[in-house]
Amino acid sequence: MTVRMTIDCMGGDHGPAVTVPAAVKFVQHTDDVELVLVGLEQPIQAQLAKLKAQTHSRLSVVPASEVVSMDDSVEVALRKKKDSSMRVALNLVKDGQAQACISAGNTGALMAVSRYVLKTLVGIERPAIATQLPNQTGGYTTVLDLGANVDCEPTHLLQFAEMGYALVSAVGGKERPSIGLLNIGEEIIKGNDVIKQAGELLRASTLNFYGNVEGNDIYKGTTDIVVCDGFVGNAVLKTSEGLAQMLGNMIKEEFERSWLTKLAALVALPVLQRFKHRVDHRRYNGAALLGLRGLVIKSHGSADAYAFEWAIKRGYDAVRNGVQARLERAMEDNKTQLGETGAAQAAPIAPAY
Amino acid sequence: MTVRMTIDCMGGDHGPAVTVPAAVKFVQHTDDVELVLVGLEQPIQAQLAKLKAQTHSRLSVVPASEVVSMDDSVEVALRKKKDSSMRVALNLVKDGQAQACISAGNTGALMAVSRYVLKTLVGIERPAIATQLPNQTGGYTTVLDLGANVDCEPTHLLQFAEMGYALVSAVGGKERPSIGLLNIGEEIIKGNDVIKQAGELLRASTLNFYGNVEGNDIYKGTTDIVVCDGFVGNAVLKTSEGLAQMLGNMIKEEFERSWLTKLAALVALPVLQRFKHRVDHRRYNGAALLGLRGLVIKSHGSADAYAFEWAIKRGYDAVRNGVQARLERAMEDNKTQLGETGAAQAAPIAPAY
Repeated sequence: MTVRMTIDCMGGDHGPAVTVPAAVKFVQHTDDVELVLVGLEQPIQAQLAKLKAQTHSRLSVVPASEVVSMDDSVEVALRKKKDSSMRVALNLVKDGQAQACISAGNTGALMAVSRYVLKTLVGIERPAIATQLPNQTGGYTTVLDLGANVDCEPTHLLQFAEMGYALVSAVGGKERPSIGLLNIGEEIIKGNDVIKQAGELLRASTLNFYGNVEGNDIYKGTTDIVVCDGFVGNAVLKTSEGLAQMLGNMIKEEFERSWLTKLAALVALPVLQRFKHRVDHRRYNGAALLGLRGLVIKSHGSADAYAFEWAIKRGYDAVRNGVQARLERAMEDNKTQLGETGAAQAAPIAPAY
Repeated sequence: MTVRMTIDCMGGDHGPAVTVPAAVKFVQHTDDVELVLVGLEQPIQAQLAKLKAQTHSRLSVVPASEVVSMDDSVEVALRKKKDSSMRVALNLVKDGQAQACISAGNTGALMAVSRYVLKTLVGIERPAIATQLPNQTGGYTTVLDLGANVDCEPTHLLQFAEMGYALVSAVGGKERPSIGLLNIGEEIIKGNDVIKQAGELLRASTLNFYGNVEGNDIYKGTTDIVVCDGFVGNAVLKTSEGLAQMLGNMIKEEFERSWLTKLAALVALPVLQRFKHRVDHRRYNGAALLGLRGLVIKSHGSADAYAFEWAIKRGYDAVRNGVQARLERAMEDNKTQLGETGAAQAAPIAPAY
């Protein structure tokens, strides 16, 4: 089976200058993939010409006359730009002409247009954004939601857990991935009411629920999946980016302090480069928009071609592993259990003191 | 003026084995300080004997017969252990016999007993926990709340900002420290209702409000102070701890990979040690419990003597700089402005879409 995906070539800070080279490289290295490049024809063709890839048999171009900019409001993206590369790329997924769409466009617009075009899965009120972060075990922790939902009910957190579970059991190679609920302590009595009720729902579910976890557990790898509301997830993700960057700069500063430290840097270079490679955030680029009737992968807006290629790979892996079908099945199973879940929701909550 | 502080010697994972050596070292290096060691007499005296400090003129011991353990509930700490080292140490502050109390005891118990013994300042509904994190500018970002309050109203976030402002203008050497509101984007329309309303209150206040900031701004040092609710603050802080630890371990692993990398480590050792010193989390130990009628500094429970000494220093600096008087004055000023703030609270909020 060939994996067919659309690329929103105009999204991100750099547009076709990044998205097209990444797409070209990806098809050159991966045999069973076809990529549909969507956007303004002229700049896309110019990039293809530059890379001598105009006639590649597994690359095609579908024109779109408008571009959703990085600071366009949801309103503008939805109502004013009906022929945007983002919208056209998503339409192709909706029409069954592609199995996934990759975009580096602005998150709010991408989520809104995806919801509008693809609609949500049965039983999903709120799609969520999930990404993988490296952890101490050498594996990955999948964290969701990362910012699609700033006000969550307990049932939303349960749904995030179900979607994360479907995703990780499909692409993570784990049959029953474990789920942690991000909280300010491990004890059941910790946290606010929403978290406590979400904990009750998760305990009553058939998922492999570990219990509460704390922020440091994300990087310890205590559980395969960490569930939180989008406000917390976004703060945690961006704090991590900021801290990693500061530490990287500090190492650099220390090695640049004098000719002696510069000499030490030369000797340590291979080691430092290996380390840099391991923690290179570009390799973790590509967050999944989960809960829609079609796969959408969101790349970081500032991604370079290397990073964007990783986002394409993320989509490719998801399609190859049948993530969408698994998500749909999980939501169907969930529907049949709904009575049970509803009962659990009404269960008394431990007192808060 | 001599700074007089009480040390809850029984708190933390290691008790007197850590707290007493830290206290001894601190008085040996600082002339104008007197420390009152509170707890079980026998282990405290044993530590003092070991360090030949039993007769130090600026160290005294006040006995307390009970110990609040790291997993005692708030209930037990408050109602069952009325002669705990924590409570006795706080009572001395309340009675004016000391200007601050330093404890590594469990956070929930310390906050509850502090509130009970010291009471909150006029105008403060919720005390908050504030700490300093290093940032890219070479300075510090003061972040609050870190976990005392898991459900905040907009007015609570405003009060956190006022308390952080009073703290940083006293000890941070900045006359009008800037304040950022932690959010998932810089735009005013971002975030949940609580955050949007808190933004309105902050804009209407006389504080030096910068606007919304994101997680990465904490380490960029965009503002002197970052305000958030305790759930988010706790997640952000613990995530940072987890990430820093993982990265530290990864560097170590890379340098231990082979004899060649071990050789490189030898050459790079001075540089790596300087880096390690700069990011040593022990130097940032000591969070302030703000909003009480007395100064309380909370040390990390797992602190070693070096880290606990930093927490003592944090208390010392706060007393020397008159933090408590500033906080009280700030809250008084605030009371007179209350009408204005109330009006701002009723102002219309930007639409959420």
